[in-house]
Amino acid sequence: MQKGFIPMSEAALPTLLVLGAEPPPRLGGLTGRVRIQFADATTLAAQLPSADVLLVWDFASHAVRSAWPGDGPRPRWVHTASAGVDHLLSPELAASDTVVTNARGIFDQPIAEYVAGLVLAMAKDLPGTWRLQGHHEWRHRETQRVARNHACVIGAGPIGLAIARTLEALGITTAVVGRTPRPGVRGADDLGPLVAAADWVISAAPLTDATRGMFDARFFGLMRPSARFVNIGRGPLVVEADLVEALEKRWIAGAALDVFEEEPLPPGSPLWDTPGLLVSPHMSGDTIGWRDDLATQFVEMYERWEAGEPLPNVVDKERGYVRGA
Amino acid sequence: MQKGFIPMSEAALPTLLVLGAEPPPRLGGLTGRVRIQFADATTLAAQLPSADVLLVWDFASHAVRSAWPGDGPRPRWVHTASAGVDHLLSPELAASDTVVTNARGIFDQPIAEYVAGLVLAMAKDLPGTWRLQGHHEWRHRETQRVARNHACVIGAGPIGLAIARTLEALGITTAVVGRTPRPGVRGADDLGPLVAAADWVISAAPLTDATRGMFDARFFGLMRPSARFVNIGRGPLVVEADLVEALEKRWIAGAALDVFEEEPLPPGSPLWDTPGLLVSPHMSGDTIGWRDDLATQFVEMYERWEAGEPLPNVVDKERGYVRGA
Repeated sequence: MQKGFIPMSEAALPTLLVLGAEPPPRLGGLTGRVRIQFADATTLAAQLPSADVLLVWDFASHAVRSAWPGDGPRPRWVHTASAGVDHLLSPELAASDTVVTNARGIFDQPIAEYVAGLVLAMAKDLPGTWRLQGHHEWRHRETQRVARNHACVIGAGPIGLAIARTLEALGITTAVVGRTPRPGVRGADDLGPLVAAADWVISAAPLTDATRGMFDARFFGLMRPSARFVNIGRGPLVVEADLVEALEKRWIAGAALDVFEEEPLPPGSPLWDTPGLLVSPHMSGDTIGWRDDLATQFVEMYERWEAGEPLPNVVDKERGYVRGA
Repeated sequence: MQKGFIPMSEAALPTLLVLGAEPPPRLGGLTGRVRIQFADATTLAAQLPSADVLLVWDFASHAVRSAWPGDGPRPRWVHTASAGVDHLLSPELAASDTVVTNARGIFDQPIAEYVAGLVLAMAKDLPGTWRLQGHHEWRHRETQRVARNHACVIGAGPIGLAIARTLEALGITTAVVGRTPRPGVRGADDLGPLVAAADWVISAAPLTDATRGMFDARFFGLMRPSARFVNIGRGPLVVEADLVEALEKRWIAGAALDVFEEEPLPPGSPLWDTPGLLVSPHMSGDTIGWRDDLATQFVEMYERWEAGEPLPNVVDKERGYVRGA
């Protein structure tokens, strides 16, 4: 179907199924060219067979994983308004012919800024300063320079690369580690020595079978006692109990988590009160206007799909992320 | 006196008078070449006539201002281990032949990092996140991007220029304003429009008669309601009551002060609890090793003075800062 043609009857339009509690903005731009239906976790399985395209707008939902296996046709294209695809990539979806795309590019710079903010805040002990402010207490301390520090960013997608560029701009010598080496990216074999030399270890990895639980006691044991760990990837990359132990035993100097095994983090979780651990509610990439940006990206991709053009941001379903630089 | 000569008798050595509660490190490198004496605020006036060189190591002391006017000879050179010279530059010292030098260069990069940390922390509402963490409360918010923001840095010395370079590296379009325009520096005449267009206004100005109280109600009224103000210069640049009013009336969105009219900030000051105001205890430039860096810089300058070479970092005593880029 080409843009600019006379609209077909409603019945002949492709069906776009949207999984999400709230409708995305910007879809008005597709009026007359697509039939839009909404699904939630309880209705998704029944609606999948009639959908040509599935937009996973509720990026915290795991409903696709459970609804995908089943009878009948499946959407030819699934787009998720997120960088990670772990929440939807079931073995059946991976084995199917369905194309999966993600929101590659939207979160890169916001997350890089967020990580730079965390790194500088920890180096300058801003959390300690503001705790003292609450007590009206003037206590001068010496803080850490970040220039000429070393960082190791784990995850060589556009988010990891944007983090590395931003840290380098602050004078931090930064290595990026991916699954396979390529120019500018070190391979997994180099991980150990890079982590052992790093002042800052940043997790921006996709959640896959290969990365689940990779940040464990053994990993934190490799780090320098003065080093700090930041995770803005996915919660299950980290063995949370091991991180708590590493902080309590001062194997490492501090950590910041934006993502968790269970989200929202339960009020009773020990992570809230772990000394040296900064907790934020999965918001590192969510700058004002992010939903507009995600929706605009999807509309542009839909128009390519409609025109029969190749889609960008196609996920390698074996690997669980978009390949390449 | 040249280095490498056979040491003269103690009486013939120049006298280095150090004003400070604690002895500086590194002066051991001058052993046998100088007679070192220590002064405090009560003894300084009596000791000044016998000093060839005065090292103001206690950079919070205003003792030089009161002790300088008096009878007898005065040191030919006064060095302060600080960037600002407002605490020592009395009219009598300004009118004298004594050379005054400062610690230009030591604080540039540390303060630039600190300001970048404050800017990112405010943009990402890290103070709010950590307050919520204390309550075990998961509350997602949208935050601000800094890329393509505009900043105005007031103060065109090396600290202001380093701040500008660092903000530019984060993608923030940054203008530097000095007393007189020069390449890369806008003049005071451009201040109004630049402030009115800025998301971030950073004070890195020296404290002089021309700058005292420049950040007042009228100035904060020029700023955008979404903009934030940071002062790492000197406390009396800001009319503190006016800043409190600007924050309470939401003329501006937030502020961070590292320096204050009275330091330490008294426990009863309203600044501690002003909404949207971040308070830190005059530490923006004080990274681990800063005292060593300051002392090493002085020893190198002393060796130049000893050798009869021109001193760097000479303060223009009329203007109250070191001139030039």
